[in-house]
Amino acid sequence: MFSWSPPPPGPLDKLFQYIDAHQDEFVQLPDGQSLPLPPIILAELGNDPKKPTVCLYGHLDVQPALRGDGWLTDPFTLAEVDGKLYGRGTTDNKGPVLAWINAVSAFRALDQDLPVNVKFILEGMEEAGSVGLEELVRKEKDRFFSSVDYIVISDNLWISRRRPALTYGTRGNSYFTVEVKCRDQDFHSGTFGGILHEPMADLVALLGSLVDSSGHILIPGIYDQVAPITAEEIQKYKSIDLDLEEYRNSSQVEKFLFDTKEEILMHLWRYPSLSIHGIEGAFDEPGAKTVIPGCVTGKFSIRLVPHMNVSVVEKQVKQHLEAVFSKRNSSNQMAVSLVMGLQPWVAKTNDSQYLAAKRAIRTVFGVEPDMIQDGSTIPIAVTFQDIIDKSVMMLPLGAVDDGEHAQNEKINRWNYIEGSKLFAAFFLEVARLHASDARNLP
Amino acid sequence: MFSWSPPPPGPLDKLFQYIDAHQDEFVQLPDGQSLPLPPIILAELGNDPKKPTVCLYGHLDVQPALRGDGWLTDPFTLAEVDGKLYGRGTTDNKGPVLAWINAVSAFRALDQDLPVNVKFILEGMEEAGSVGLEELVRKEKDRFFSSVDYIVISDNLWISRRRPALTYGTRGNSYFTVEVKCRDQDFHSGTFGGILHEPMADLVALLGSLVDSSGHILIPGIYDQVAPITAEEIQKYKSIDLDLEEYRNSSQVEKFLFDTKEEILMHLWRYPSLSIHGIEGAFDEPGAKTVIPGCVTGKFSIRLVPHMNVSVVEKQVKQHLEAVFSKRNSSNQMAVSLVMGLQPWVAKTNDSQYLAAKRAIRTVFGVEPDMIQDGSTIPIAVTFQDIIDKSVMMLPLGAVDDGEHAQNEKINRWNYIEGSKLFAAFFLEVARLHASDARNLP
Repeated sequence: MFSWSPPPPGPLDKLFQYIDAHQDEFVQLPDGQSLPLPPIILAELGNDPKKPTVCLYGHLDVQPALRGDGWLTDPFTLAEVDGKLYGRGTTDNKGPVLAWINAVSAFRALDQDLPVNVKFILEGMEEAGSVGLEELVRKEKDRFFSSVDYIVISDNLWISRRRPALTYGTRGNSYFTVEVKCRDQDFHSGTFGGILHEPMADLVALLGSLVDSSGHILIPGIYDQVAPITAEEIQKYKSIDLDLEEYRNSSQVEKFLFDTKEEILMHLWRYPSLSIHGIEGAFDEPGAKTVIPGCVTGKFSIRLVPHMNVSVVEKQVKQHLEAVFSKRNSSNQMAVSLVMGLQPWVAKTNDSQYLAAKRAIRTVFGVEPDMIQDGSTIPIAVTFQDIIDKSVMMLPLGAVDDGEHAQNEKINRWNYIEGSKLFAAFFLEVARLHASDARNLP
Repeated sequence: MFSWSPPPPGPLDKLFQYIDAHQDEFVQLPDGQSLPLPPIILAELGNDPKKPTVCLYGHLDVQPALRGDGWLTDPFTLAEVDGKLYGRGTTDNKGPVLAWINAVSAFRALDQDLPVNVKFILEGMEEAGSVGLEELVRKEKDRFFSSVDYIVISDNLWISRRRPALTYGTRGNSYFTVEVKCRDQDFHSGTFGGILHEPMADLVALLGSLVDSSGHILIPGIYDQVAPITAEEIQKYKSIDLDLEEYRNSSQVEKFLFDTKEEILMHLWRYPSLSIHGIEGAFDEPGAKTVIPGCVTGKFSIRLVPHMNVSVVEKQVKQHLEAVFSKRNSSNQMAVSLVMGLQPWVAKTNDSQYLAAKRAIRTVFGVEPDMIQDGSTIPIAVTFQDIIDKSVMMLPLGAVDDGEHAQNEKINRWNYIEGSKLFAAFFLEVARLHASDARNLP
């Protein structure tokens, strides 16, 4: 585990005092075994109505790790090598959680007034899809969360090794299955090959109708709701610190679909993308089996961006696939299902807490942050924004090469310590801006 | 096991005397365990140079069977219910092997001269791909097989319940893999979706270019070598006893690609067919995983008919896929491989043994046989024809509903007993025709 020594002299007073009692809720595991959900920790420090209340989200669960997977050190014993702190969870997400605690502790150790009220929400199911989190947030909306002004999530990474970032958006996702069925049993391709509408031929045609070789999605209307690009936005991409050649090399990709940094970033963050994940029910093993699968299910998903809407996309996908299928005159049955729909998230970057974070970054690092989005889906941001209806910000402190989820995950000592300073500075800045916002209210 | 009582009085003299000594050859099992190959039995009875020598092929191994699979009787204890003899191997292939032995025994029991020299080749690896068979046939070509005039295989079924059939052709097969690779590891579709030439999109386009929705193969030139259809052939299809409605119902297929018996039979027997079997390396499990597979392998095969040639087809497939792939301008690597190539088999149906079998069928059953082909690939027919270079015939005696490979496999008592008579009659007819052929030699 991550070993943490609190800054002298003392631990936080009331922190970690509110332990959620949801241990009786159960999650059904695939083998039928039931385990209690781990508790979600809600903690608070300070309740001064004159101060803003900042709620910090983090998670204490981690990805699995075994020494034999290729770790150079024991993944569950913190080890420092050349200024890098190695261990499972160092960057995802125990290190950032501790940096927040460090910042609070520093104020208290110096007997300085903590300029904000602090609330923590720390869960233990993030790596398994945050089971139980949304339910708790809904339940505590008018209690624990009623006084919250700002929500900060420090659970992602910078896009560079040295330059801090602020994350203001994530793509959503819509995950589809398309089943094509002739009958439940498979056929022998010698005995039936040549006289059947083969489900795999139908499915391959359906999946092949979704996206062209340049990555452009072929579903009619799918780009209609994508927010138009602005000159200011293009400028934002230009200023981002991304070494494309290094990025390409570290990705082990021969060539991307696009050649410039701006195009790459736009297609990861502000345009939808469609990926075909695989097929269930066909022959997927090594070797050569002469089977005609009787019933196959294709799986694909579309990453969503502002202002796309899951329900509209669902309708467009179904209409498109039905049109393609109907042209085939197949006697098979087709069924399209949306199995997961998550809206994209985007924040207003002129909110006080974004301005406060920018100022704090300038103070600690002496640079402007990269203003970034994340191509993947972080549902908790949408959950918080939708349910609590307050400003949500992602303030990462890990570097792009930290290797979250990978072997030899690390956080740099520099990121961890400067990040603790950043968080302390953020408390001061957000309190100052909040007060001036309050004075300016009509 | 199949319980066999020899007809009175006696067993065959020299039968089963030649036991192959290939027990030292080993086959490597997937778990690394090595087991000796079961022996292939070579047996002979009679060596009269004035008589023709008929070589009968059969196999004594069976598909697995467990009572719990849905058998109504113990699969390894023969049980007769309503004239049906139930048990694993009754029709595939122990029953037909015993019927040949019954025919020989009847001649001997009545002290009648057996009009042919008989040879048996009985293997024990047919259900596992006839491992070791081809090697043995090559080795024995100029010894055991040197005197053989006719080879008869009784290891398939009639196409009807009551009408005997003669099989004169089987389709070949060419099995292909097409691998598309970006890198060995998978990608996260949030982090990389939108900027990659995704291997699944390439593969789906490649597989989608192979066959249209009417079952027509789209590979240029693929039909060039298919034998032209003759009026005589069409007449042959017309006369075949196939209840299309019953066939469709028992297949649990809503609708075939074709509406007439003739078209169905032609597309199973005399036209090539292409089936897509599946994809290795993609997400194939239940659930929703947002993965971009890094390297995927599609699998498909083309059933071959006269006069298609595996090497020509291989070249056509590779050229076609390379052309499709090259148009995509993908930065991925594509590799096409032929992993199995088996030539189609077709016999001359005016060979003496076909005429003899037709006469024998008329004698025993009072009808003309269905002259049928088999859409699947039976490699032993090609093996015998190519290596021994003598006429090969398939003379089935099981009915279409025998359920080989399925639960409750059976052979009808009627088929088994009339089949034994058919084989005895065949010995007489083939000897007569053989003698008259010899007299007519220039």
